[in-house]
Amino acid sequence: MGKRIVIALGGNALGSTLPEQMAAVKKTARAIVDLIEDGNDVVIAHGNGPQVGMIQKAMAELTRAEPDKYIPCPLSVCVAMSQGYIGYDLQNALREELLDRGIHKGVSTVLTQVEVDPEDPAFSNPTKPIGAFMTKAEADQLVAERGYDVVEDAGRGYRRVVASPQPKAIVEIESIRDMVEAGLVVVACGGGGIPVFRTEGHHLKGAAAVIDKDFASCVLAQSLDADALIILTAVEKVAIRYGKPDQQWLDELTPDEAEQYAAAGEFAPGSMLPKVQAAVRFARSGPGRTALITLLEKARDGIAGRTGTRIHA
Amino acid sequence: MGKRIVIALGGNALGSTLPEQMAAVKKTARAIVDLIEDGNDVVIAHGNGPQVGMIQKAMAELTRAEPDKYIPCPLSVCVAMSQGYIGYDLQNALREELLDRGIHKGVSTVLTQVEVDPEDPAFSNPTKPIGAFMTKAEADQLVAERGYDVVEDAGRGYRRVVASPQPKAIVEIESIRDMVEAGLVVVACGGGGIPVFRTEGHHLKGAAAVIDKDFASCVLAQSLDADALIILTAVEKVAIRYGKPDQQWLDELTPDEAEQYAAAGEFAPGSMLPKVQAAVRFARSGPGRTALITLLEKARDGIAGRTGTRIHA
Repeated sequence: MGKRIVIALGGNALGSTLPEQMAAVKKTARAIVDLIEDGNDVVIAHGNGPQVGMIQKAMAELTRAEPDKYIPCPLSVCVAMSQGYIGYDLQNALREELLDRGIHKGVSTVLTQVEVDPEDPAFSNPTKPIGAFMTKAEADQLVAERGYDVVEDAGRGYRRVVASPQPKAIVEIESIRDMVEAGLVVVACGGGGIPVFRTEGHHLKGAAAVIDKDFASCVLAQSLDADALIILTAVEKVAIRYGKPDQQWLDELTPDEAEQYAAAGEFAPGSMLPKVQAAVRFARSGPGRTALITLLEKARDGIAGRTGTRIHA
Repeated sequence: MGKRIVIALGGNALGSTLPEQMAAVKKTARAIVDLIEDGNDVVIAHGNGPQVGMIQKAMAELTRAEPDKYIPCPLSVCVAMSQGYIGYDLQNALREELLDRGIHKGVSTVLTQVEVDPEDPAFSNPTKPIGAFMTKAEADQLVAERGYDVVEDAGRGYRRVVASPQPKAIVEIESIRDMVEAGLVVVACGGGGIPVFRTEGHHLKGAAAVIDKDFASCVLAQSLDADALIILTAVEKVAIRYGKPDQQWLDELTPDEAEQYAAAGEFAPGSMLPKVQAAVRFARSGPGRTALITLLEKARDGIAGRTGTRIHA
């Protein structure tokens, strides 16, 4: 019996560079097509940390080389470019893997904008470093000229930091739903989505922010009324007392239990914590909804209940 | 009575820089939404000359700044990024214009690959200049190290040239058709599509080429069984003896007449000629198919038969 599944791909599913990505997506496609072969409908979201960093740096180099010709490229535009870059490789790898197995399903990558709240407290406390390291002089200039926020990063220099606000809604959700219902495999919300504010009425404006891809995937899964949200990462299961002698892997958690562990500081911020938070949010959002956190190669076993950490009411 | 229309947007519909594009797409969206308001289904393709040039240059600057870290970015990947960059602005402008007029239709940009033939004669005679000007030493190095083709451009330096092969088929055509049938406004084949070769079986490989957006739009219109292909450009009508005292605007042409004029050298290569060739090809491809060449702001009048140059059997 097929399920509707939203898959959030972590950094290890894509690699960091052009050649790494080309190789990584092949393995990623195998794991995803396993789920499709089992009769599930899947929608795929992914991160873009290294990729948007690369693009942002390239665009900054261009402005540096020809300042009169090229203005600095807004971060939202860099995210859009990264959706093109990653989507191209991912959609191709999926297409090939499907055809290799004789499965005739279209694959489409949709440019996706995700609405954030300009009043989100994340904007008063930007924490997400992006782009290249700078000298103090370069950093001071950006602060003065463009109002950027910068931080010093452990003696390696200065970096721009941007906000990581919560996703509120997916602008292209109707299109994504139509495509899923037409039987397509859809790649959406790349890099957590292009972050936008709603200004007057229905007008949208790009935001200098990056959205956590696990939280964006949670909104995507809720909006599509998915049965499952699979968050793929570098460990097979969530653990408490992680890395300690008495570490304990977790198979099954209620949202309340997961939240208690989170409150007790069991999960690393910026790493396992947002995954668990996104999983809890999805599991609580409606009856019969299950979130699964596991390794890429264990997705099929995980959805069959044989491994991974399942969070559900 | 609504028609299915494929629109090919020229460079003037998008501008060349970030701020120009932001402004140009608003005007472009008004012209396109006019057609949607009249009850037509539209699919939009567009060029990407200045945009892919900018991205290619940015990625080359990145490789130049950190050669150990960043390998040169393949042209096919730059095209994918340009689809993200242009699609983001275009889809947003369309969405706003639709909502401003109270029309509730989803807009989606789909990453699109277009298959070309590795035996296409264009590959033995690359003519399309891309990227930045180089010194002779830089050009020689690229020829030696990467096998690039370069040409000297009128005393301004050397530039890389790539092939502009004919489009054979649109890889994501099924997805695009499903989306059109679901009532979505679709942006596809950006920049003529990401050029790919078919290698063994169904495997695809990025090609170092750029596909003419008018020819790609023609394949798109044929594959979608469109009623009309509108090629928007900087003139209201096609002319013979263009720019001469006895210049004559053309309202209506059969494919044969258009071809005779083309053979007589009436249309400039790389400018009006490929537009007329794409229009002829579409008009000949099936009964009842009309191609229209006109100004962006005249699209609505043109489709109503009041202006532009119409080519049909």
